[in-house]
This record gives sequence, structure tokens and C-alpha cells, in this order.
Amino acid sequence: MFTGLSAFPLTPVKQDGIDEVAFIRLVERLVIAGVDSIGVLGSTGNYAYLSRAERARAAQLAVDHAGTVPVIIGISALRTRDILTLAEDAQAAGAHGVLLAPMSYQALSEDEVYGLYETVSAHLSVPLCVYDNPGTTHFTFTDDLHGRIAALPKVASIKIPGVPETPVAAKERVKRLKAVIPPHVTVGVSGDAMAATGLNAGCDAWYSVIGGLFPATALAITRAAQAGEGIQAQRLSDQLRPLWELFSKHGGSLRVVASAAELLRLVDAPCLPLPLKALEDEDRRMLATVLDELTPS
Amino acid sequence: MFTGLSAFPLTPVKQDGIDEVAFIRLVERLVIAGVDSIGVLGSTGNYAYLSRAERARAAQLAVDHAGTVPVIIGISALRTRDILTLAEDAQAAGAHGVLLAPMSYQALSEDEVYGLYETVSAHLSVPLCVYDNPGTTHFTFTDDLHGRIAALPKVASIKIPGVPETPVAAKERVKRLKAVIPPHVTVGVSGDAMAATGLNAGCDAWYSVIGGLFPATALAITRAAQAGEGIQAQRLSDQLRPLWELFSKHGGSLRVVASAAELLRLVDAPCLPLPLKALEDEDRRMLATVLDELTPS
Repeated sequence: MFTGLSAFPLTPVKQDGIDEVAFIRLVERLVIAGVDSIGVLGSTGNYAYLSRAERARAAQLAVDHAGTVPVIIGISALRTRDILTLAEDAQAAGAHGVLLAPMSYQALSEDEVYGLYETVSAHLSVPLCVYDNPGTTHFTFTDDLHGRIAALPKVASIKIPGVPETPVAAKERVKRLKAVIPPHVTVGVSGDAMAATGLNAGCDAWYSVIGGLFPATALAITRAAQAGEGIQAQRLSDQLRPLWELFSKHGGSLRVVASAAELLRLVDAPCLPLPLKALEDEDRRMLATVLDELTPS
Repeated sequence: MFTGLSAFPLTPVKQDGIDEVAFIRLVERLVIAGVDSIGVLGSTGNYAYLSRAERARAAQLAVDHAGTVPVIIGISALRTRDILTLAEDAQAAGAHGVLLAPMSYQALSEDEVYGLYETVSAHLSVPLCVYDNPGTTHFTFTDDLHGRIAALPKVASIKIPGVPETPVAAKERVKRLKAVIPPHVTVGVSGDAMAATGLNAGCDAWYSVIGGLFPATALAITRAAQAGEGIQAQRLSDQLRPLWELFSKHGGSLRVVASAAELLRLVDAPCLPLPLKALEDEDRRMLATVLDELTPS
């Protein structure tokens, strides 16, 4: 489950809940495309903005509509108590695995983060993916801490925030991390712009934002890398450079993929929870142009 | 209400709710000491870690036990929808004012933050204090944005994160901010170590963490500054230097004041919501020594 392409769909929202019809549509597109797993309620899935009931509902809908594709469900929250409740909800919905970030309000110490994973992993009956995303959690893992957490029961994968740009440095980075974690724990790259480089450098998985909206495109990159055709994987990724530039310009991928989903009429606008706003005006027109070029009719 | 000493008590928690007896005790100490207002459910009040029901309960208990002291209630949350609900709860509990930080998971744009305050202020019937705390929200206000938000209806104060260290630079900072906001909007300093400097530099209020636990000490500093005895205010603040050093060492004030409340037996240990941990071992012993020196029997 924690290898290949793990596609992270948006959770489109309405004022009074999630947009169930649109969410099911997004999940079903991933199943048809043949992704290796579906990651719901990650950052792209807006987990941090949803109520417990909304998260339980999204988890259930994803499992119900994923067919035989394994579903990984995000259980992150600020408080350990709430994470344990969300873990129970996810498992009750039929999660095949869970994803946990050290979300913070007060900055967390290394000791507090280790204690968090120790407590949660001891309560789980499904495997866990450690979600390392300093851009949103404001917590930076050391490799030593990754090693200690990866040795805990149930820990099966680490979602890393990215890899260095050059192939040699990327390979060195993945090798260094793999040296301190047990061999059964996989490493998955995120930060879509770095995914081809990460897969070519030995990452076992790609935890993918664009995979949640453009699964065929993300699969082509993943399968090329898995077949050892690294140059082709990189070439396909380079074709998406206009998208990577928009991600970079708009402080990450979320607002761009949400706007893309709106422009492609896969979700109703607005699909993001306020105060978050999708791209407007000139930025939105630029995205529409990029989408036109990337998805020839 | 948004002038003088605003004291921010802890919200001590238990696994299944807030520690009501201890919380009431903390609030009543502030009333007896004669603080100018009480700020509940700020960062020190652990708002980010509490459920809606726990926050409503803390708000009600604070108002019920504050006597004639005005109560300012924190309504911050990641999602605009939840903030509006929390504002209704706070007003129903009898809040005299509310406090709102641009809490973030996805980094917020200036436009999104303005939109947030515009929406929330339009729904309020009590005055609002803008809570500028980049250390926990990861959002940095520009003075231009402060000016635009301060011009919105209901906005009555800005809680700034601190002031520069030297008196001249601090005075310049406060003057610059006051120049862009309406005259009826007060400026309150936070970051306890900088409070005397901030008050001496013209801040109208001190939004105070130690005021929540050591109200007489914080009042002595505040009253000295208000009486124009700036040197005395600074001298009293300097006596607390060992405490400021512990704040700095432990990534902020929360874990230190929570540990102090535990050591003084004002709350049961542990009083912080996991994954947050109070000071342990040598750090805790060092705090106990500092407390002994600061509170002679």
C-alpha cells in the first residue's frame, strides 16, 4: 500500500459539510485510473479545516467508493486525544492505513513528537505513515527522530517533504534516511515538482497532489520511474513545469489544484473552506491557460 | 477594557474536559488582585487544543466568576465557519470582547486574513481585539494590513507580539503603528519580557501571561508604567529576568507558566493537553528554584 502512486484527492467543501457528490466523483476517477492507493484527508484533503463528523464521512465515502484500492486516511490533529478518536473513526470506516503529521500550534519539541507517535502507534490496528511536512506543521524532523519513530510498531512509511534538486544529492538524501530506518518502512516523496527526482533516487512511493486530480499523468511518471526509465519520468515531469511554477507562486499546491478542479468543473466553486481562497482574476486565467496546454482536447 | 493589565489565565485540562475547579480558582485570583480585564482562551488558555464544548464551558465559567471585571474571550480557529460559531458561543456566555488570531495550517495570504476579519467583525455585537502572534499563527501582519483591519467596525484593540528592546526603538514602533490605526483602537503589548518596555513606549495595555498567574506582580509593573514611573516599571520587570530566560529557553511562556502553576499546586499535574508536556527533571527543578527566589515566603 505504501509504494507506487498514492493519490491525494481534494475534499471539496460546502458551507454545511463536504460536497459528497463531487468527492465521490474524485475518488472514482482515481480508481478507474488505477492508482496504487488513495490518501484522503491529507493537507490537500483539507483535514485541518473539517469537523470530526465531516472527516468520518469523507473516510467512509472514500472506502466505500475505492473498490479494491487501499485507502490511507489522515488522522492528524493538534491534540493527542483527538488523534486517537480520529484513528478509531478511520479504522471503523475501513482504513487500510493512516497518515499522521505532527500538526502544531505551540511549537513541538522532539520529545513531544516522539511521545505522540509512541502513543498513537500503540493504539492502532492498521499501519501508519509518518507525515513529514514542515511547511504546514512547522516541525522539522531530524533523521535520528525519523529512525526512532520508524522503529515503533505499526509504522510502515515516511512521507518526506521533498528531495534535493540534483539526482546525485537526491539519491544521497534517500540513502541517508533509509540507513536509519528498518527495511520494511518505505519512503515516499511529496512535493510534486520533486517527485520524478525522488522516485528516480529510490523513493518507494509518491504521495501525490496532482495524482488526486490528474491520476493518468501522475501514473505515467510513476510507472516510468518504476520501470527504470528515469529519463522518461523526468521528461514527463518537466512538461508540467508551468504547474510547478504556479504551485511555487501560490505558496503550495492546494489553491492551484482546487482552482483547477473548479475550472475543470469537477467540483463546484468555491470548494475551499474559508478563509482559504482559490485563485482569482489574472492568476485564475493563467491557470486556465496552463490547463488548456497540459490537457489537449 | 482594552487598556491596563489584561491577565491571561491557563485553561488547565484533564483527559475528559477542563479542570473546572482549578480554572475557577485561577480566575478568582485575578479578580481579587484587581486586574483590568481577563483574557481567556488565548494561547495561554490552550484554545487551539479544546473542543467547542470545552471552550464554551471555559467562557461561561470565566464570565460567571469574573465579577465586574470584563472578560475577553478567544474565538480563533482555522476555519471561518468555526470562528463564527465560537463568536456566538462567546457572546452567549457574556463576553465583553473577543480576541481573534489568524491561526493557520495552510499559510494565509494578506487578502485571506483581511477577508477573515471583515467577515467576523460584521457578525459581532461586542468589540474585537486583533491577535498578532506570528510565533503560533505563522502569519506576519504588515502595518498597512493592521491599518485596514483596524478600520473595520468592532475592532477596538491590537495585541502586538512585542516591541524592540531599546526604549527609543520601542517608542518609534508604537508610534508608527498608532499612526495607521484609528485613535479609538488601543495597542497592547505581549511577550511578557518586553511588557515594561512596551508600556513605557506608549502601549495602552499589556496582554499578559504572567498576569494570569502572578497578577500582583504584573499589576505592580503596569501601575508603575501608567503612573509615568518608567524606571520603576523596568526595574520590577528586570527582577523577573530568570523567568524571561526560562520562557526563552522553552520556546515560549506556556510550558513554563503551566509548570509553575503545577509547582504552586494551583492546578493538578499534568495540566497541559498532550502532546504538550510541562517541564521535566532538571528544567523543572530550575523553575522551582526561580519561583522560590521570586516569591519569598
